[in-house]
Amino acid sequence: MDNNRFCVIMCGGVGSRFWPYSREHMPKQFIDFFGTGQSLLQMTVERLSAIVPRENIILMTNELYADIIREQLPDIKPDRILLEPARRNTAPCVAWAAWHIAALNSNATVMVAPSDHLILKPTAYADAVRAAFDFVDGHRNALLTLGINPSRPETGYGYIQAGEVICDNFHRVKTFTEKPNEELARVFVGSGEFFWNSGMFFWSVQAIIDAMREYAPDVALVMDRGGEMMGTAAEQHYIDVNYEACPNISIDYAVMEKAREVCVQTVDFGWSDLGTWGALYDVSPKDRDANVLHGTRAVLHDCHDNIVAVRGEKLIIAAGLHDYIIADTPDALLIIPKDEEQKLRIYVNDVRSKFGSRFS
Amino acid sequence: MDNNRFCVIMCGGVGSRFWPYSREHMPKQFIDFFGTGQSLLQMTVERLSAIVPRENIILMTNELYADIIREQLPDIKPDRILLEPARRNTAPCVAWAAWHIAALNSNATVMVAPSDHLILKPTAYADAVRAAFDFVDGHRNALLTLGINPSRPETGYGYIQAGEVICDNFHRVKTFTEKPNEELARVFVGSGEFFWNSGMFFWSVQAIIDAMREYAPDVALVMDRGGEMMGTAAEQHYIDVNYEACPNISIDYAVMEKAREVCVQTVDFGWSDLGTWGALYDVSPKDRDANVLHGTRAVLHDCHDNIVAVRGEKLIIAAGLHDYIIADTPDALLIIPKDEEQKLRIYVNDVRSKFGSRFS
Repeated sequence: MDNNRFCVIMCGGVGSRFWPYSREHMPKQFIDFFGTGQSLLQMTVERLSAIVPRENIILMTNELYADIIREQLPDIKPDRILLEPARRNTAPCVAWAAWHIAALNSNATVMVAPSDHLILKPTAYADAVRAAFDFVDGHRNALLTLGINPSRPETGYGYIQAGEVICDNFHRVKTFTEKPNEELARVFVGSGEFFWNSGMFFWSVQAIIDAMREYAPDVALVMDRGGEMMGTAAEQHYIDVNYEACPNISIDYAVMEKAREVCVQTVDFGWSDLGTWGALYDVSPKDRDANVLHGTRAVLHDCHDNIVAVRGEKLIIAAGLHDYIIADTPDALLIIPKDEEQKLRIYVNDVRSKFGSRFS
Repeated sequence: MDNNRFCVIMCGGVGSRFWPYSREHMPKQFIDFFGTGQSLLQMTVERLSAIVPRENIILMTNELYADIIREQLPDIKPDRILLEPARRNTAPCVAWAAWHIAALNSNATVMVAPSDHLILKPTAYADAVRAAFDFVDGHRNALLTLGINPSRPETGYGYIQAGEVICDNFHRVKTFTEKPNEELARVFVGSGEFFWNSGMFFWSVQAIIDAMREYAPDVALVMDRGGEMMGTAAEQHYIDVNYEACPNISIDYAVMEKAREVCVQTVDFGWSDLGTWGALYDVSPKDRDANVLHGTRAVLHDCHDNIVAVRGEKLIIAAGLHDYIIADTPDALLIIPKDEEQKLRIYVNDVRSKFGSRFS
């Protein structure tokens, strides 16, 4: 494996959309979603360990989750776990990772990957990731993003319009778009030119640092000021004191939408961001009544189009449920219509106000 | 307390109607149904301990449940726990208890009580039980049953028609009836003469032995043959060998419906046999949307007429459920429409065939 290749896994996110599976103290990425014995983060690390040296995997997280990560990934060395002292969206996180890696290896190429996505075709994924590294090895100024071949007119994602072909399935990016309405999403998908923005990026460490200095100078300034401490024992302390001064901004908005040499690799490897129970329903195999059963023993009668998530050996008997989300954990149970999922955040807030934060 | 008064608590029954709370290895009577820290059996023993000496409480059970009983009632002496080696309905059980008690005290009066019923007015219950003992003290040949003042035209119970008044609310029994259809049940309830057969009985030990010899001679014969061993160390072995020879027959059918001096005390002490989730729903307090919540933290939206039973500290968020039973235990979850409860037995059989007996 190429020692110049690094993976930055972002695993500091919080999300209540998968309640009760995900909680504030236990976000989605740390959960063994499919009862396989591995959390989404552990699966992500395992996938990437086949592609880059394991010691080149850097975990970016919030200090709240340091203990969970040490527990789930005991063989990742402490100096490969960077603890963000505040939530500042992806641009400052990506920047810190870049300056950190540059201090270790100024020739590095870097993949930035979310930790909480589902990949259903791991071989195709590994091939795409290797091709992406090869691409940024050869295009040292490029900022590459992965664009997912869209399977439906999803209104919950941003889209990337692919332009001129560079080689194979690598294109220049024509535009980044915000989440479209349904009509526009249909046009996007029908055109064949638009791809889902996956939040996966590749670049040489120099390209991203240069782009940061140009397009996100307030973020770059914080990192440049700490430059000499990067990769040393003083680094975490410097970040603890200065990170909060970074603006709260996404890498897409801060850099990708503005930079010149932005490219997209169009891919199709069974990707889901697992953003909602509904998204999980969509990507999962279904029984003949269109029910999705996750890690569960179920006896269903007159039940169709439900997603049922029950952990471990637990059994469910259900009847007369159509289009519901049923999600059970040892301390909480959710049963709501699929089309009311957008209210889940409100319901979980209700829970917090009634029963305190332990359930939220 | 009167040392001649004994209580026989029948706690050998098995029932799948409260699945998943009740299981074959853990029937309803052993369950802490209301999260109070006491099983229905423990509550029954506690209620009766205020009325008869605790050492005069005899537990009749199946040998399968001996360990559970010893654990739940560690202060009941082993010689007060009679282990039926086979299921033979109530007549042989009542007979064995009678012969056993007669060997201890030939002047005894006996209450026979189920172990798995709910009593919502314990003071009225205690008064009724004491009055019943007084009655059979004074009427040494009487076989007394308790008839519950019916609150609805229930088709799931047998009814007792009360005839001539003997004193207060004690009557001669005119007829015992099988479970009526709904039309007949309405007539029964409207008449004011019909009462639910509660399965609670009182008699002098001599009266029931005499009645058994006359009306259930095949049962009486088994007990008479072992007469000298009753109350001795040899008793259990004798029963282990001979009990199976008893016919499988209920005390109602074998004796009560045939005997001469059969009386009924009409009572009203907030009784429920807790025979079904629906029955539990009916007797339980409801929220303003007519939901019944048992031992649960719940956030319900657009939910009405449900019964929600979730154990301990567990939380439930539910939306859009009307007229459902939702019952959760650590290893099983039930969500079915209330009006499909009669199918629960079939569903649980499905479970057994699919996943083995551990869930049934």
